[in-house]
Amino acid sequence: MRDAYIIGVGQTAVGRHNDLSLRVMAARAVEAAMHDAGAESVEGLYVGNMLSGVLLNQQHLGALIADAAGLRGIDAATAEAACGSGGAAVRWGVMAIASGQHDIVAVCGVEKLTATDPRITTRGLAMAADYDEEASHGVSFVALNAMIMRRYLYEYSLIPEDLAYFPINAHHNGARNPNAMFQKAVDMRTYRRSPVVADPIRVLDASPICDGAAALIICSGDRMAEIKASGRPFARVLASANATDSVAVHSRATPMFLQASYLSSRRAYAQAGLEPQDINFFEAHDAFSVMAALSLEACGFAGPGKAHEMAKEGEITTEGRLPMSTMGGLKARGHPVGATGVYQVVEAYLQLTGRAGPNQVQNAAIGMTQNIGGSGATVATHILQRMN
Amino acid sequence: MRDAYIIGVGQTAVGRHNDLSLRVMAARAVEAAMHDAGAESVEGLYVGNMLSGVLLNQQHLGALIADAAGLRGIDAATAEAACGSGGAAVRWGVMAIASGQHDIVAVCGVEKLTATDPRITTRGLAMAADYDEEASHGVSFVALNAMIMRRYLYEYSLIPEDLAYFPINAHHNGARNPNAMFQKAVDMRTYRRSPVVADPIRVLDASPICDGAAALIICSGDRMAEIKASGRPFARVLASANATDSVAVHSRATPMFLQASYLSSRRAYAQAGLEPQDINFFEAHDAFSVMAALSLEACGFAGPGKAHEMAKEGEITTEGRLPMSTMGGLKARGHPVGATGVYQVVEAYLQLTGRAGPNQVQNAAIGMTQNIGGSGATVATHILQRMN
Repeated sequence: MRDAYIIGVGQTAVGRHNDLSLRVMAARAVEAAMHDAGAESVEGLYVGNMLSGVLLNQQHLGALIADAAGLRGIDAATAEAACGSGGAAVRWGVMAIASGQHDIVAVCGVEKLTATDPRITTRGLAMAADYDEEASHGVSFVALNAMIMRRYLYEYSLIPEDLAYFPINAHHNGARNPNAMFQKAVDMRTYRRSPVVADPIRVLDASPICDGAAALIICSGDRMAEIKASGRPFARVLASANATDSVAVHSRATPMFLQASYLSSRRAYAQAGLEPQDINFFEAHDAFSVMAALSLEACGFAGPGKAHEMAKEGEITTEGRLPMSTMGGLKARGHPVGATGVYQVVEAYLQLTGRAGPNQVQNAAIGMTQNIGGSGATVATHILQRMN
Repeated sequence: MRDAYIIGVGQTAVGRHNDLSLRVMAARAVEAAMHDAGAESVEGLYVGNMLSGVLLNQQHLGALIADAAGLRGIDAATAEAACGSGGAAVRWGVMAIASGQHDIVAVCGVEKLTATDPRITTRGLAMAADYDEEASHGVSFVALNAMIMRRYLYEYSLIPEDLAYFPINAHHNGARNPNAMFQKAVDMRTYRRSPVVADPIRVLDASPICDGAAALIICSGDRMAEIKASGRPFARVLASANATDSVAVHSRATPMFLQASYLSSRRAYAQAGLEPQDINFFEAHDAFSVMAALSLEACGFAGPGKAHEMAKEGEITTEGRLPMSTMGGLKARGHPVGATGVYQVVEAYLQLTGRAGPNQVQNAAIGMTQNIGGSGATVATHILQRMN
């Protein structure tokens, strides 16, 4: 595979953007990334999005956003894998470079979830699950995750508070990220007082409905001489891997192990020639507290039922052994679903290039991101390495 | 770029499939393609689809179809570019092979449009246009194309009958394709009697609402020794290119020239080192008669306003200078929107490997497909060459 390098990123703040249409948010992120990379143009644009058609009556975002960003004429298309759409778009961008199809491309993740009644948005989010076998019978996406969390607590004899250290860490980091939706630290007292959404999931276990757009610029090694000479920091894509599982949770051998997260991370480690202990920080898909735990376990960072101990013992803080959700994660930065996988890579890039501000992880050389679609049915893993 | 080869194809008949869910149609096509290729497994699956979320409450088709086809665990995701989604998925598959990410992958285009009230389906199809600037003001997708056709007839002093030779050719070929939706020849008399849908577009100028799934298997050169030894026919992907334009038709310099079709075909010719006269047959995006004409002109096969002469003079029949819509095209084979771009490549493969039955183009060595999203806003072009 030809090498692929990330040379610039852009993002809008995550939140409720009543005044910005989807295309304007996306164009701003792409333009910011191009400016950051010092790129005057790109040859391709891969858009990660899940629900624009369902919620906003607009498919065909590739051409739409390319035009809005002043890039009419270039190659463009949309990648979709539910909440893993952003990771899928990053993968397409990496393949476009690695294949030699293009020498420089943009990837943009964008989602606008607050323009519709939350009931409609919740109905849309359930399309990440299996409609015929799950959603049509009345289970919402958060209810599916509540069943997984309940079983997890039962299997390992835990209480909800054991998993609360994940959102507490996420909010601690989000409080120091100007692009995060929730810039407010929380503690166990706040957690206990937060309302139950779908028992045992509390508001503070669940990522919010929000809007956001993030973008990055990927280029081939042919541009390296130029970029190295500029002295700009950049990152190399050491691995890009994906794996799937049944969409319906009940069809799996066990809901207690994310098989696709396991496969995806193992494929990524193999591509990079690395082991879990080589990873300096991890941008996990902490859409729900239990998902943070399950992905840490599936990726080989913690044993079964043991992930919460890492969180409780401070190992996931920016000063810990494996900093996690360093800019607030899905919980505090926010989870604009199809954009999330791109936000993760943008944040990993900021860490690796020393631009993470008060959340900077010291001596971060290798970072991993993992973006999950559905309740663990599509899992994209990226490993990035600091250059320059 | 590493070489990419197509080694097998599968399809369901196009039509109204009340008894088949989307996932079952797709899985059948993938399984048929794997059987045709003699492949026991694949490493990735790229799905082309436009409206599953909007019409069937189901996103996340990559993992869903991989599992339904017995491929749980592999890499999978969806590509979307409105009516150009199939072409986008083929491109992703080619890049997955060319990048070295995978050695063998499947591409599947699937769409199920007949499960909902046609009013809902029509509303969904308008999501290929610009919602804020076109569809929200009440214009349907067929109405947009009607305005383009009216202008075309005016500019070149033509009458609707001048363009009728495109659907007459398509139906002639569709009548000999057992997978076509309309297996019935039509003539000028039938055309004149067919009802007007959106003046001047008649039913016989417009492709139908339908269901369908098509799939193909792409592999890298690493498998060539094995495949050549088998004596099986196969095809090489000489070019895979894409280009975009503004989604809103009114934002273009002129609606009379498909700039993205022009750019996409020129990029493809450059990749393949070919000129228009080297192409032996052309699977065009004849969703509407005027689109068949405009794409022939943009691709350099006919001068401005002259494409209808090619059709009238029999140059686009399977015995003509540039056989077109050889298996019925979008008009007669049918246009299951997100699947169409894959059907086109499947049909080109059947032509190149001598398996097109009564529609076989003699001595077909190089074929071109062009898949259009929206009214010319995303255009994917593939050029394939016969091997063995």
